[in-house]
Amino acid sequence: MSQVLALDIGGTKLAAALVDQEGRITGYQRTETPPDLDGEAIWRVLEALAEKVLADQPTELIGVGCGCGGPMTWPAAEVSPLNIPGWRGFPLRARLQERHPGLPVRVHNDAICMALGEHWRGAGRGTANMLGMVVSTGVGGGLVLGGRLIDGASGNGGHIGHVVVDPDGPPCKCGGRGCLEAIARGPGLVEWAQAEGWRPETTVSGVDLADDARRGHPVALAAMRRAGHALGVAIASTVNLLDLEVVSIGGGLSQAGPLLFDPLHEAFDRHARMAYARQVRIVPAALGQTAGLVGAAALIHEPEHYWGGEP
Amino acid sequence: MSQVLALDIGGTKLAAALVDQEGRITGYQRTETPPDLDGEAIWRVLEALAEKVLADQPTELIGVGCGCGGPMTWPAAEVSPLNIPGWRGFPLRARLQERHPGLPVRVHNDAICMALGEHWRGAGRGTANMLGMVVSTGVGGGLVLGGRLIDGASGNGGHIGHVVVDPDGPPCKCGGRGCLEAIARGPGLVEWAQAEGWRPETTVSGVDLADDARRGHPVALAAMRRAGHALGVAIASTVNLLDLEVVSIGGGLSQAGPLLFDPLHEAFDRHARMAYARQVRIVPAALGQTAGLVGAAALIHEPEHYWGGEP
Repeated sequence: MSQVLALDIGGTKLAAALVDQEGRITGYQRTETPPDLDGEAIWRVLEALAEKVLADQPTELIGVGCGCGGPMTWPAAEVSPLNIPGWRGFPLRARLQERHPGLPVRVHNDAICMALGEHWRGAGRGTANMLGMVVSTGVGGGLVLGGRLIDGASGNGGHIGHVVVDPDGPPCKCGGRGCLEAIARGPGLVEWAQAEGWRPETTVSGVDLADDARRGHPVALAAMRRAGHALGVAIASTVNLLDLEVVSIGGGLSQAGPLLFDPLHEAFDRHARMAYARQVRIVPAALGQTAGLVGAAALIHEPEHYWGGEP
Repeated sequence: MSQVLALDIGGTKLAAALVDQEGRITGYQRTETPPDLDGEAIWRVLEALAEKVLADQPTELIGVGCGCGGPMTWPAAEVSPLNIPGWRGFPLRARLQERHPGLPVRVHNDAICMALGEHWRGAGRGTANMLGMVVSTGVGGGLVLGGRLIDGASGNGGHIGHVVVDPDGPPCKCGGRGCLEAIARGPGLVEWAQAEGWRPETTVSGVDLADDARRGHPVALAAMRRAGHALGVAIASTVNLLDLEVVSIGGGLSQAGPLLFDPLHEAFDRHARMAYARQVRIVPAALGQTAGLVGAAALIHEPEHYWGGEP
């Protein structure tokens, strides 16, 4: 059966899978991203992971799709993932192409691949206008409009983390101010809560913060409300601007449930008042951990919708 | 020569033209929008205007393209323009089709048509990712992404007037709060300036306000700065999100020049920090008054790029 080798490269894990034309995963391997290796050593870990997946079963491979943390040049995919210091300008697409001569090899931003997974086989299935978001250590996303992936001029389309939700808000790592990501990224929440007097019992993470909020800790609750509001404002701006049908929200922080989604909907309802904007569905992502792999495979299985780079 | 009958229907004027496949206007007529007529009477004025244009020269008509003030259903184009009270649910596309049987008839929002004109033959020519804005009595726009017009789920794509620039800002006519349009629309500026003590000598309009700002009136200057900042924040959000190449700004208020563009660039520079966002060109619209007609014609001349409705 025609399969795509799908790769998902992030700061904490590397994953490889075979994905068929229905978006089903028929082979899967993952490992932790080696934290301190140099570029070539990381490449060898990835290569071994892919080999293992390919060795597990006989298959007719029709291409390689890959999601990777940004920034990267696109579509050439020389990648410099923020959380993989060993790769700076690493020629990922060229190396994958060398390894798989004669097959199409396509690389895109990991948040875009997660959005594509959600559009192809998840919460956005059957719609033509969708935003897929990832709310986690960072806030990223991808857009499908008119049934097609929006790449943008340089592959950065869908970068909702830098929609401004408060022009006088906190500084953002991008150098701007008041971006959604500055407020709603997990570590940003934790920092804010600590400055407001939150003292976690064990580790210091977004998950602990959500747990404490669930137990009614007032500062933890306020932190979740603040993030939810920021998300609601950014989503309202985006839906007003783009006339979407569905917004899917994935990533670790999205698992906080109503703690995050209640204030999100409150802010969205306040700022999205036009009839067309109020018809959008805002839903948790449907695919979970494998969305990125499914979306990476979609770059190969459905290029007429999802691939705007050179073949 | 193959010509399109292009129509531009707004609250203050009706315009009709013949537009060839190069985007050149070869016949042109305009008249004031009759303020108090009923729907049928307005239709007859429009019909007469089109007849005059068609009578002026022999032509091979290949279709009818029309921009009209919103809201409207799309692509069916039952229109209810805010500033034409005589038309509520007026079946514009159907009536044009009746009048021109056998020809393609396509209607879109007037701000979208202005953006299309700018993309096809104006400031966005040759780019694939553009926002065209109109800053006037309202704030509207249209988006071309990946070389194609973004319609959105219901024809409302590109509606940048309702990007939120200040979540606690003034109420907007849409029912929301802190929208770009609430702050940067001409009448909004004037209202704010009057509340701050501006007393115009003659009429009360955005043009007078710009004139007084040019003469150094402190409140008028502050009003222009406030609008420029709001525009800069909304454009930064949009460029960060969509990775655009060019933003063109037209409409009456855009003629204020540096009074508006200086604070706009200041706010944009503060909030658009990523390398890809800083490469965008923000420029005044190139086509002026006729952009909407040229864009309406583009719906017919270039459907593979600009028409996503049924044929």
